[in-house]
Amino acid sequence: MTDPTASSPAPARPSGRAPDQLREVRIERGYTRHAEGSVLISFGDTRVLCTASVENRVPAFLRGKGEGWITAEYGMLPRATHTRSDREAARGKQGGRTLEIQRLIGRSLRACVDRSLLGERTITLDCDVLQADGGTRTAAITGAYVALVDAVNELIRSGEIKPKGGRTPVFGAVAAVSVGIWKGVPVLDLDYAEDSDCDTDMNVVMNDGGGFIELQGTAEGHAFRREELDAMTALAQDGIATLIGLQREALAG
Amino acid sequence: MTDPTASSPAPARPSGRAPDQLREVRIERGYTRHAEGSVLISFGDTRVLCTASVENRVPAFLRGKGEGWITAEYGMLPRATHTRSDREAARGKQGGRTLEIQRLIGRSLRACVDRSLLGERTITLDCDVLQADGGTRTAAITGAYVALVDAVNELIRSGEIKPKGGRTPVFGAVAAVSVGIWKGVPVLDLDYAEDSDCDTDMNVVMNDGGGFIELQGTAEGHAFRREELDAMTALAQDGIATLIGLQREALAG
Amino acid sequence: MTDPTASSPAPARPSGRAPDQLREVRIERGYTRHAEGSVLISFGDTRVLCTASVENRVPAFLRGKGEGWITAEYGMLPRATHTRSDREAARGKQGGRTLEIQRLIGRSLRACVDRSLLGERTITLDCDVLQADGGTRTAAITGAYVALVDAVNELIRSGEIKPKGGRTPVFGAVAAVSVGIWKGVPVLDLDYAEDSDCDTDMNVVMNDGGGFIELQGTAEGHAFRREELDAMTALAQDGIATLIGLQREALAG
Amino acid sequence: MTDPTASSPAPARPSGRAPDQLREVRIERGYTRHAEGSVLISFGDTRVLCTASVENRVPAFLRGKGEGWITAEYGMLPRATHTRSDREAARGKQGGRTLEIQRLIGRSLRACVDRSLLGERTITLDCDVLQADGGTRTAAITGAYVALVDAVNELIRSGEIKPKGGRTPVFGAVAAVSVGIWKGVPVLDLDYAEDSDCDTDMNVVMNDGGGFIELQGTAEGHAFRREELDAMTALAQDGIATLIGLQREALAG
Amino acid sequence: MTDPTASSPAPARPSGRAPDQLREVRIERGYTRHAEGSVLISFGDTRVLCTASVENRVPAFLRGKGEGWITAEYGMLPRATHTRSDREAARGKQGGRTLEIQRLIGRSLRACVDRSLLGERTITLDCDVLQADGGTRTAAITGAYVALVDAVNELIRSGEIKPKGGRTPVFGAVAAVSVGIWKGVPVLDLDYAEDSDCDTDMNVVMNDGGGFIELQGTAEGHAFRREELDAMTALAQDGIATLIGLQREALAG
Amino acid sequence: MTDPTASSPAPARPSGRAPDQLREVRIERGYTRHAEGSVLISFGDTRVLCTASVENRVPAFLRGKGEGWITAEYGMLPRATHTRSDREAARGKQGGRTLEIQRLIGRSLRACVDRSLLGERTITLDCDVLQADGGTRTAAITGAYVALVDAVNELIRSGEIKPKGGRTPVFGAVAAVSVGIWKGVPVLDLDYAEDSDCDTDMNVVMNDGGGFIELQGTAEGHAFRREELDAMTALAQDGIATLIGLQREALAG
Repeated sequence: MTDPTASSPAPARPSGRAPDQLREVRIERGYTRHAEGSVLISFGDTRVLCTASVENRVPAFLRGKGEGWITAEYGMLPRATHTRSDREAARGKQGGRTLEIQRLIGRSLRACVDRSLLGERTITLDCDVLQADGGTRTAAITGAYVALVDAVNELIRSGEIKPKGGRTPVFGAVAAVSVGIWKGVPVLDLDYAEDSDCDTDMNVVMNDGGGFIELQGTAEGHAFRREELDAMTALAQDGIATLIGLQREALAG
Repeated sequence: MTDPTASSPAPARPSGRAPDQLREVRIERGYTRHAEGSVLISFGDTRVLCTASVENRVPAFLRGKGEGWITAEYGMLPRATHTRSDREAARGKQGGRTLEIQRLIGRSLRACVDRSLLGERTITLDCDVLQADGGTRTAAITGAYVALVDAVNELIRSGEIKPKGGRTPVFGAVAAVSVGIWKGVPVLDLDYAEDSDCDTDMNVVMNDGGGFIELQGTAEGHAFRREELDAMTALAQDGIATLIGLQREALAG
Repeated sequence: MTDPTASSPAPARPSGRAPDQLREVRIERGYTRHAEGSVLISFGDTRVLCTASVENRVPAFLRGKGEGWITAEYGMLPRATHTRSDREAARGKQGGRTLEIQRLIGRSLRACVDRSLLGERTITLDCDVLQADGGTRTAAITGAYVALVDAVNELIRSGEIKPKGGRTPVFGAVAAVSVGIWKGVPVLDLDYAEDSDCDTDMNVVMNDGGGFIELQGTAEGHAFRREELDAMTALAQDGIATLIGLQREALAG
Repeated sequence: MTDPTASSPAPARPSGRAPDQLREVRIERGYTRHAEGSVLISFGDTRVLCTASVENRVPAFLRGKGEGWITAEYGMLPRATHTRSDREAARGKQGGRTLEIQRLIGRSLRACVDRSLLGERTITLDCDVLQADGGTRTAAITGAYVALVDAVNELIRSGEIKPKGGRTPVFGAVAAVSVGIWKGVPVLDLDYAEDSDCDTDMNVVMNDGGGFIELQGTAEGHAFRREELDAMTALAQDGIATLIGLQREALAG
Repeated sequence: MTDPTASSPAPARPSGRAPDQLREVRIERGYTRHAEGSVLISFGDTRVLCTASVENRVPAFLRGKGEGWITAEYGMLPRATHTRSDREAARGKQGGRTLEIQRLIGRSLRACVDRSLLGERTITLDCDVLQADGGTRTAAITGAYVALVDAVNELIRSGEIKPKGGRTPVFGAVAAVSVGIWKGVPVLDLDYAEDSDCDTDMNVVMNDGGGFIELQGTAEGHAFRREELDAMTALAQDGIATLIGLQREALAG
Repeated sequence: MTDPTASSPAPARPSGRAPDQLREVRIERGYTRHAEGSVLISFGDTRVLCTASVENRVPAFLRGKGEGWITAEYGMLPRATHTRSDREAARGKQGGRTLEIQRLIGRSLRACVDRSLLGERTITLDCDVLQADGGTRTAAITGAYVALVDAVNELIRSGEIKPKGGRTPVFGAVAAVSVGIWKGVPVLDLDYAEDSDCDTDMNVVMNDGGGFIELQGTAEGHAFRREELDAMTALAQDGIATLIGLQREALAG
């Protein structure tokens, strides 16, 4: 690993970005009309449509407890990718990668919700990738948070949820980004070209208090060392702070 | 049935449109980057992403015959509709309605392709509904045609397909529209509100020669009579002529 | 297309029938013993066993509304056809064609039933093809109607359903037939040999008032024109009138 | 257990038959047209359509070995029974009972076939129950044997299979019957009413040399003793000898 | 068949055992900690983990009847066998053999339980094969009986079930063994090498009163004759008496 | 978070272990007979049977490349847990948790294998949980490594694989352990009681060079901070060093 503090110049990223530079992020609220929250988020060429749907029922294990539930589903359009993938509905099952990602999104968003304030409601975050260029799961989490806030705010505005002692169901904010070691350099927000060619790939989910919600690192080429871990989490921390700012701007807009 | 030629005023459609008026149609080519053809088509609030993917293989029943294949898959994002529907990939199978629609799309587009000029290639048209407001299958067919032409033109430009005697694989054009009897009046291009409240619903697929490719009429309330059938097919004929003009403009654009 | 009114002789159909001639139709009631209605219908060599089963429950979406439900399932024995097809139960799913046909049968029969007079009961029409020679779905609809009437009459005879103001749940009659353009000639009731070799294939469902319930036309070879549509629907109208007469005779028998 | 040789009168069977009396058996060859062998067999009110289909391929584990394969599939029409059962194709899987029965049919028929004389062919016996009144699996085996012989004879007649040294693929004959202990009396060929009310139920498959191919006995009420086993197998032996005579007559007819 | 009473020496079994000799049987109670009954049973190299799980609910068809239910599930670890088999969970369904075996285990154990004394409880016997060397289903039945007794005794000890008139839910004992004709000799308790090479294979389930619960014989090579059947059932009777003794010892231990 | 270096006494773990203390680890090689490698590993009451199966074929995407493949499957016996879980084979699919774990095991072990030295072979690691008490995935990885080494050594001993330049397919060692924050204290190797009650749960996979292979941390209660991350990874590093020592001992044994 190259010491990221060393003076020798890092190799240029395929995208031309600086190691700590995010791709251009766009967050478009109200992208579709029916959902209680609907956000099209782009991390560069990665585009994910995130909708939040409110239903007045909860899974069996929560019935009668007065609590709500937050869950997520993830999908990729067959031609979101370079070559066409089979449609999971046609194959008759969701693949392991899909299930893994949607479990991650669900856990991440539950970490910023006080479900006791939600009543017996389920909010489902559907994250569908329209175009993929790396980082679809981190874009999904970041966009789904905005859709979730829109849906909850609507419940509050309409009086269906009443804040208790000023507290509303969503506390804090959650966003996610990928980091990796690319040709020895810790880099932020990998696109597909970088992701295919990196030694380590880590997805980081954090809240606006700088705490870690999820950390999933995988050595692709060689095992990564503690100082690489430190460099990657530091990059992620800065990237996520920026993303949380962008979420705030979008929600204020 | 009210005679559509009679002078008594027809009741106003919920959309405020004249009986023979299409919704606003937009056709956006190149909506996503990876597919050989990629079109976002809107019929009013109905929005369908149609991609055409080229693969150098054919289904088993065509292997070694030197012919190509055109097929379609259809999906609806879970929250494309007023209330959330189950994700078919999660339920583990495609419903009857989905299968019926994707078979219709495939048959319709095969009707304008000379598969012997395609070589042993499959072009898959994925039609994914981002937002639904009635007429998703007719929008899908109309948009998929444009995506198909883009994909075939790219094969020609790159020299992978060589026209024979000036003929290219796609001959003519195909478009589709729904018609119905709404409160006794034959109307063109039903939106969801009209579709839920009409007596008869018919989907019509035609080519640019004015021939019928598919005709699927269903009496919802009462059986429809021959003169209603005639009025509906006449409306469809005009509507499809307009749509084929819009396809041409989009492809010229 | 050959003008059907022209004097030049039409080519002989493989079956030797006149263009407007049905195959021999047999309707055998009480074919099996357990079902409330059980009809073996033959359109020539096409033989379909149609049973009507009454159950005292309705699907979830109708519970508590006091209405009944009519639904259909369709199957083909693996060796009903020239070459053996996979058994759908063994493959683990019903194919698109099967689902499409059983949806059509269900819709067609619901069109002649006042479900509010049925009480919270479901009548399931199982249509199983013992031998296939074209037109299985139209034979199924025509036979299932007879089985349905038998089942409903039994409910009335046993006092489980009481007619209101003289009205019973089944009003009118429903039958179906296929028509097509075969070597330029509009012909009625296609058998397999004709179906495989025709330009257009249309399934028509009508009631005894001469109204259309369903119309599904597909251009196999070339697009069909309005005058062909007119000729086909006229043929269907006559054929269905004959079939409804045969249903009546069978029910009177 | 009542000693079947004792003089005290046995209770009358619901069917009025003597303890060692078969139901009326009918074997109708050529019931459908497409299959290489097609037999409708009735054991009283139990009716099973057995078809034999020849295909020029074998399962993967036999490829290239020059041997053939015999396999069976079993199905029950949804309303073959007193109350409607779910359609297995709609449920998406075959139940344990179905799989168990079709494995039994397959094993039983393989016991009378020299597969090395069959060439690389698969013969599939489809046994579909049109009406059930007990004993469907034994009727299926008895009828499938006749369909199998018809299919193999056709292969011989057409010269596709050439007997070696006078030997043809099917040697001997196979038939099956159920026996049971009903109210203490060993009885032959249980119908549904007897089967539902008996203490022991045994299915026996034998060949024309009097050897056992399969023996499956289940104590429903109380465990059965060796002398009951002996009485039941003796009854079965006689019943099967009769059935094999009827198969021969049918094949000679 | 060689007369087993004749003086000419029988060929030595691959295992070196005498024709009427069981493999070494070990029954280890309390093998795992969570289940109400948990037994590791070995028949030689065949090792099956049998657990009994008590749940306070019954299947739909028994609800409200005050009776309990006994059911079984069977599985084989993918590498329990000489070559690896596909994992059924990964293939998405249980094979016919698995379903057949688990139905057999369930029926066999229900034969020694008075379900009216069980209350509305289900006891599930999970039989998972850790290592297979022939006879897995008979070992499973024999071991599951011990697990079942442990689970029921625990329900009695804890007062959840109160014996009525001194009667407890489990009456008698049930065990199972395989027998076969190997190179003309009737032999007891086939291991894999013998099973692969025998002419007839029979699984026998009996109770401690010497009655037959289940008898399933299959001719693998040639049909078996009545005197072979007699010899096999006699061998089974002795073997099962020994197994029931071993169950008793284990339960007393 | 309590500073782990602070002097105030940490609360006692339910298991009575020191914060940095592993449970008793046992590694039993050759647990079953058929597999090329077969290891029963226990982390306290968690017991996982890990088998390595060698097959002379590779998945389609590797065919003809001269490389091998390492993959894993994971299962849990239905009553490995406190209450019985549904059998995945009976439910017809593997759950998201199962797929996630088996993907993790596969990736972890591929990280210590040079697949180009393996030839076109697949080694499948089946990890089946016989008894669960927390940490099943980390026990599975640690045990599967030993089974893998046994299988590869056997391939070398038998000459099927020839080391190139002294290099053999497995380089280094891989082991895994869980760490967490339990009542504010970073603790090693969580059992079920601790896992259910902890704020953060992290699974760490490392190699014998001290590099990270996988790191998966999840905030259950509150987000974790960088210093907690550091404390957890330090604990894991020590625990894994111990585990790798135990693997070595077992392999030397």
